[in-house]
Amino acid sequence: MSNTIGSRFKLTTYGESHGLAVGGIIDGCPSNLSIDFEAVRADLARRRQGAARQEEDAVEWLSGIKDGITLGTPIAFSIKNKDTHPEDYEALKDCYRPGHGDYTWQQKFGIRDHRGGGRASARETVARVVAGAVAKQVIAPVEIHAEVAELGPEAEGDTRGGIVSCRISGLPAGVGDPVFGKLNARLAHAMMCIPSAIGFEMGSGFAAARMKGSEYVDRWIGERLKVKGERYADATGTSPLTSTNHCGGVQGGISNGMPVEFRVAFHPVVTLPGEVECLTESGELRMVTVGGRHDRCHVLRTPVIVEAMAALVLADFLV
Amino acid sequence: MSNTIGSRFKLTTYGESHGLAVGGIIDGCPSNLSIDFEAVRADLARRRQGAARQEEDAVEWLSGIKDGITLGTPIAFSIKNKDTHPEDYEALKDCYRPGHGDYTWQQKFGIRDHRGGGRASARETVARVVAGAVAKQVIAPVEIHAEVAELGPEAEGDTRGGIVSCRISGLPAGVGDPVFGKLNARLAHAMMCIPSAIGFEMGSGFAAARMKGSEYVDRWIGERLKVKGERYADATGTSPLTSTNHCGGVQGGISNGMPVEFRVAFHPVVTLPGEVECLTESGELRMVTVGGRHDRCHVLRTPVIVEAMAALVLADFLV
Amino acid sequence: MSNTIGSRFKLTTYGESHGLAVGGIIDGCPSNLSIDFEAVRADLARRRQGAARQEEDAVEWLSGIKDGITLGTPIAFSIKNKDTHPEDYEALKDCYRPGHGDYTWQQKFGIRDHRGGGRASARETVARVVAGAVAKQVIAPVEIHAEVAELGPEAEGDTRGGIVSCRISGLPAGVGDPVFGKLNARLAHAMMCIPSAIGFEMGSGFAAARMKGSEYVDRWIGERLKVKGERYADATGTSPLTSTNHCGGVQGGISNGMPVEFRVAFHPVVTLPGEVECLTESGELRMVTVGGRHDRCHVLRTPVIVEAMAALVLADFLV
Amino acid sequence: MSNTIGSRFKLTTYGESHGLAVGGIIDGCPSNLSIDFEAVRADLARRRQGAARQEEDAVEWLSGIKDGITLGTPIAFSIKNKDTHPEDYEALKDCYRPGHGDYTWQQKFGIRDHRGGGRASARETVARVVAGAVAKQVIAPVEIHAEVAELGPEAEGDTRGGIVSCRISGLPAGVGDPVFGKLNARLAHAMMCIPSAIGFEMGSGFAAARMKGSEYVDRWIGERLKVKGERYADATGTSPLTSTNHCGGVQGGISNGMPVEFRVAFHPVVTLPGEVECLTESGELRMVTVGGRHDRCHVLRTPVIVEAMAALVLADFLV
Repeated sequence: MSNTIGSRFKLTTYGESHGLAVGGIIDGCPSNLSIDFEAVRADLARRRQGAARQEEDAVEWLSGIKDGITLGTPIAFSIKNKDTHPEDYEALKDCYRPGHGDYTWQQKFGIRDHRGGGRASARETVARVVAGAVAKQVIAPVEIHAEVAELGPEAEGDTRGGIVSCRISGLPAGVGDPVFGKLNARLAHAMMCIPSAIGFEMGSGFAAARMKGSEYVDRWIGERLKVKGERYADATGTSPLTSTNHCGGVQGGISNGMPVEFRVAFHPVVTLPGEVECLTESGELRMVTVGGRHDRCHVLRTPVIVEAMAALVLADFLV
Repeated sequence: MSNTIGSRFKLTTYGESHGLAVGGIIDGCPSNLSIDFEAVRADLARRRQGAARQEEDAVEWLSGIKDGITLGTPIAFSIKNKDTHPEDYEALKDCYRPGHGDYTWQQKFGIRDHRGGGRASARETVARVVAGAVAKQVIAPVEIHAEVAELGPEAEGDTRGGIVSCRISGLPAGVGDPVFGKLNARLAHAMMCIPSAIGFEMGSGFAAARMKGSEYVDRWIGERLKVKGERYADATGTSPLTSTNHCGGVQGGISNGMPVEFRVAFHPVVTLPGEVECLTESGELRMVTVGGRHDRCHVLRTPVIVEAMAALVLADFLV
Repeated sequence: MSNTIGSRFKLTTYGESHGLAVGGIIDGCPSNLSIDFEAVRADLARRRQGAARQEEDAVEWLSGIKDGITLGTPIAFSIKNKDTHPEDYEALKDCYRPGHGDYTWQQKFGIRDHRGGGRASARETVARVVAGAVAKQVIAPVEIHAEVAELGPEAEGDTRGGIVSCRISGLPAGVGDPVFGKLNARLAHAMMCIPSAIGFEMGSGFAAARMKGSEYVDRWIGERLKVKGERYADATGTSPLTSTNHCGGVQGGISNGMPVEFRVAFHPVVTLPGEVECLTESGELRMVTVGGRHDRCHVLRTPVIVEAMAALVLADFLV
Repeated sequence: MSNTIGSRFKLTTYGESHGLAVGGIIDGCPSNLSIDFEAVRADLARRRQGAARQEEDAVEWLSGIKDGITLGTPIAFSIKNKDTHPEDYEALKDCYRPGHGDYTWQQKFGIRDHRGGGRASARETVARVVAGAVAKQVIAPVEIHAEVAELGPEAEGDTRGGIVSCRISGLPAGVGDPVFGKLNARLAHAMMCIPSAIGFEMGSGFAAARMKGSEYVDRWIGERLKVKGERYADATGTSPLTSTNHCGGVQGGISNGMPVEFRVAFHPVVTLPGEVECLTESGELRMVTVGGRHDRCHVLRTPVIVEAMAALVLADFLV
């Protein structure tokens, strides 16, 4: 039921891994924005790098844009699934892989598309990357940069997790809502919506829990320009506000003009090579060689998804 | 603007630290539920333990309950702020403490109630604990237990952070929504809405990022009872579903019937004893002795808040 | 469950007719607005005029306002129910009056507060009038004026319905959202939420269905000032845009700068004097003399409620 | 921004009249529902009858359905616009037709797709009819029947308005939410979202405003079966609940088990044949012969749209 994120700049996605198409509707995109389609393609290429599945990811723009300019109406887009091998998944029709959402989706819906993980597949994130690339253009000149900060151990034939760090620069002070709409909480939600995300921390994060208060507190820098009364102070970045940034640029749920910094932990993909023990519908265990194509180190593909999710959150605040 | 959490079981809170009252409206509570007011008082007492500020926390129930039974209409409640010392905060009228939301709220709203942190104060969480205590009764027999797992270093006169772990037991499989409504993502959001929360992880969390895939994957246990077709399978707990619980009981965003386990990192409170350097409205630094009463180790008071937020999330899924 | 109206300027109301209090939370009110409490009292007095029940309607402002200025945080308010006569309703404990919501609420919730209609009572509208009076200040200089356009037949001892007309002036062009957020549709929703509202029409309304197209179409007036490119053109009203206003100032769901005009039909109140035949819980009919105090011509009290609902809709678009 | 209707069974539509496609996403459709595609085609045919524009309305189902069965995931669908004549609208590039949304959309968005009304075109309703046809299957055995009750005067070469009546039968008591979620208010909103709708009334509607209370009140019928305690009483219809149905089957915002009856007034279409006086962007008047194909009596095509909107509202309550 929750296929929509955002309340002002909203993305609703659709599509199963081996269905006809994956796509979405962006509602709330400002009008008169000139869309840079090349930037969209570049982000899609980053998401594809090293992928086992070969998809062209050609985006069909169905509405909301005329002559490259947004109309202020819903932007619908569609990406056909072309490189599908449904036959690879025949063995999974009546059993559940360990670690996957096969079992839980079946419990919730009483039905599932077993081919390639159906809607639980990370294939769905292609729609987020498209929308995220649009959102980045909406929030410019705010910039988002994510990168792999750490990779899990390399082991022969095994899959690897890792940690992605993200830095948002150019964001003015005053962005975020108090109480239940905190910028950090909205980012945490967005990041944990990425398949295989298992941890989130702002600034110094878990390490901050082990600091003394006097170590943790970010101190004001004196030569900061006079604080002006405007709603959103300018974040030129020429002089930082605080000497450290343990809080990650957010105080009381609202940005303070420093870079917003956070990290996302990803567990290794749970599709292991070779035979795995699956749970059948009748409650027995069965050894199955899972087909399909699966990444060994999917973390390398996630920074652009992290950026997309961050852009969606920010666009929702900034439009 | 975002003072509401939930879409089916909804809590909207209000109130400033030194205003007349703090409280909320619960909308969507099922009718014909007999409210255990003693349980509400017990949770409020847990939140008060070791608090510097002495509040009686007497809850006035304004609507939605008749003769102790819920009517299905909004439950409004109010808690008067009694132990307020607004004069302690005079020095903060025109300057911003380091680490607090003083500066960011001023940037966003162009005004703030400087007394005791205004609405950014953790005083607001008293309303969450009241609503959380109601939510716990709504989701029974599901049980939530949070406790301090780790405390930051004790240092003379300094403040301490820490880590709280939480375990939800009795939750059936099938709870959670895919994509942007994942149970883990909703929990992450809720936890990061707690003042001073700075990190969140499900199950093995950040440690999972450093595991090999073959270590991480939670394996099926064979003797599990036959999986039945019902929407929500029974989570009797008599026999676990998997041999490990690295994922924290959620797969593909949906509960699998194992205990849901997560941890929340809290940074030390940023109100340091003694003189601190504040930023004035005119952009200068000024040494200020911050008055008011502040906890040295607030983490001890947070488990009941963690439980309340988890209960609100679950009630929203289960009603 | 639907005790909230609005998505940006939001009002959530609470309270039963004979409970402790009726009130609400306004979320999304801009900060730094100076509240005119006298205007709130004046609107409450309009709502009280000719009322059978005598209430003082003293508003307790619990949060969100400091020294008369809004903080941008939730504005909670409470009005104690003082003139309650619960004993008048004893006879209704186990039976349903004709025409009322007694039966339907019981069917939905399995419980109801039978005293004075409980939450279905028009007593709840006092909270809307308070919030509406605040909303009017938010949308100034846009002005809303409603009045009784027509009263139903006067009959000895009977109750009367009527029609209220409303005119919004000073609203610029460009307000409203297409498709499902049309200004006219949002107004229709808001008006039909008023107890006893049974019809709504924009501009010429039902009469327009009987016009020929060439009669109906509102024609441009030539001397209109050059249309400027701004998002919201100025609606000075010095020169009208069209020669007629059959559409009621809204085209394609969006205001055109002409006055917004609509009418709301109210049926007579369904509490008839004397004995009425009620349906008992066991499905029999029983003659009951319904106690309580009820207006014979409640329509006279509705214009300020119509204005309040219109103000809430507009504030939601304009903040 | 408001291209979504519903909160549990949600429809988001997209598409411009002369863009590539019109379509939507249905989110919240229950899983395991077998879709009757023939019923969808039949409703589309009803919408097409007598249409000036010739569209095949072939629906491409992109997701959410596998082997004809719903998966519980978003159902995306797309209908290509084939019979487009953009050249017919060249004259409207820089001027606004009277009565249309041309001017207001330009004021709001600063841009518009002038071809065939762009997104303001009734072409968009094709997506609603598709989703409505699905919604009807979700709410079965509840039945919705709308028909033209009255047509405006026939005049040579002129356009005609009219009134459509709608009756929902089989709806149990207890459907609807109090206060701001009233079934009648939600229906009013949905109906007023249909292009050219200008009035709405429940039951006796505006006529009820002119009745005496003793005439208006719907009286209980004695032989009604014992009211059972269930949440939704059975609406067998074998014996009516009340002797009249002036209220239109809704009391206190909640259905009472009687047929839900309402009427919608439509004004004549505002595209008149021949030359019309348009407002240019520079604020002058210009005689323009408007091209494109336009219905003279569009009311004949609206009953299926009224049914679709009613079905969407009901599905949102019933899922």
